[in-house]
Amino acid sequence: MLNGDTPLPLDDRGVTYGDGLFETVLVRDGQPYLWDYHMVRLLAGCQRLGIPAPARDELDPLPGRAGPGLHVFKLILTRGSGGRGYLPPASPESRLRWQYLPFAANEQRWREGVRVRHCALRLSIQPMLAGLKHLNRLENVLARREWSDPQTAEGLLCDHEGHLVEATCMNIFWRRRGVLETPRLERCGVAGTLRQALLEQLPMFEVDVGPGHLDEMEALWLGNSIQGIWPVTRLDNDEGKPLVEWKLTDVHREFQNVAQRLLGYPELPKVEKP
Amino acid sequence: MLNGDTPLPLDDRGVTYGDGLFETVLVRDGQPYLWDYHMVRLLAGCQRLGIPAPARDELDPLPGRAGPGLHVFKLILTRGSGGRGYLPPASPESRLRWQYLPFAANEQRWREGVRVRHCALRLSIQPMLAGLKHLNRLENVLARREWSDPQTAEGLLCDHEGHLVEATCMNIFWRRRGVLETPRLERCGVAGTLRQALLEQLPMFEVDVGPGHLDEMEALWLGNSIQGIWPVTRLDNDEGKPLVEWKLTDVHREFQNVAQRLLGYPELPKVEKP
Repeated sequence: MLNGDTPLPLDDRGVTYGDGLFETVLVRDGQPYLWDYHMVRLLAGCQRLGIPAPARDELDPLPGRAGPGLHVFKLILTRGSGGRGYLPPASPESRLRWQYLPFAANEQRWREGVRVRHCALRLSIQPMLAGLKHLNRLENVLARREWSDPQTAEGLLCDHEGHLVEATCMNIFWRRRGVLETPRLERCGVAGTLRQALLEQLPMFEVDVGPGHLDEMEALWLGNSIQGIWPVTRLDNDEGKPLVEWKLTDVHREFQNVAQRLLGYPELPKVEKP
Repeated sequence: MLNGDTPLPLDDRGVTYGDGLFETVLVRDGQPYLWDYHMVRLLAGCQRLGIPAPARDELDPLPGRAGPGLHVFKLILTRGSGGRGYLPPASPESRLRWQYLPFAANEQRWREGVRVRHCALRLSIQPMLAGLKHLNRLENVLARREWSDPQTAEGLLCDHEGHLVEATCMNIFWRRRGVLETPRLERCGVAGTLRQALLEQLPMFEVDVGPGHLDEMEALWLGNSIQGIWPVTRLDNDEGKPLVEWKLTDVHREFQNVAQRLLGYPELPKVEKP
């Protein structure tokens, strides 16, 4: 059988056009978390792009081979080789690759929260690709290149019309007037699997909001299905100058702990009073 | 020495994020055409994305190895492996790959012109990537999937604000009130090397125009550095219904022949009167 990490030939459409999808799945002792959410997103991506989806029978056993400990199971699915230029072959044979990468969560960021900044780059609007975890990620790369100081954990991204969308590799969540909200992702952004699970478990609403509203937020968080949820304690502008600060509260912990349970991470204790 | 077509490892950022650039160069008997234009665009892309550019000494001998006959020399340059997620490594080691693909020009399309259609997909606006021939090409793939009848040679693309930009793999040119024009490409689209050479050789202007103006055009052409220039004789809407027709004239031939000379193709004769 083919090894999951066999290199990709130069004529693979994943290489030449980013014509494919990926998933990164948290796996503990061979047990994947949010697996069904990852599979639903992958198959939705296949349908939208017209890439033949692998059978669940083929995919389901793969995370189990990660071995003991915590891993990120990374899966790449491309449209395979062939076609004439951009035109895909009439019957593409999709190509599946995967890797197991050892992982350790950043517990300090869970406990103490993170500093984030605005990115100058504006995400382009493309409803045909919005929500998918596809292989065209140059915008994320360029946004992530905007800062290098390790004190800044993430960068917030707005679209070209000024709506908050996501962070470079995480979704955004906040509480405003007592209500949990997260940006709508129908025009750009990646619809994270943790975000989807939280939308199903909690009363949380998808909204369009500009970055000017961030100082109205009672709490702001970033999260994804690998790292869990990081509370944001400080927001800087796109030059690193401070804009807003938040104090950690039990409101932060309550939301984080829903994600901790979904991902098999330990419950976080209440915030210590100074 | 490494073969040009060595497969790419799964952790190459070209594979994982489309974090790279490509060029396709027409080569006749080992002689590349518009080579300096390709190199200028490649190096401009490297600068914009922050990818270390290979030395011209390393690149210049490659087309010569294509052997006798007509080939497309395809070059892929990625940011290489490494980094933490989207963050590139501080000192990336870019990775170069290349292939020689036998090629024959479509002489019938030169002579008789082509039918094209509007695409329903709207190109997203991203000035940070506009003009570059980068590896994030899912929009082109999705646009090209909109039709499959072989009578339709290309699809015209507008951006989200309704400006004409390009075709799926070619640039657009037209004559309106006696003046040659081509769309501005500062917000999306690929700045073709043939387009650049034509802009330098001819009085041609870069403009913003909506698709509603196409029926004012006295002549419409598509072109790239591999195929040369195709006159458009019929434009359909995005459902394949005819919108505009053009008769081939010597105005078409005159423009085509500038490109024929630039690419070492034979001069096209005057249009035969019926």
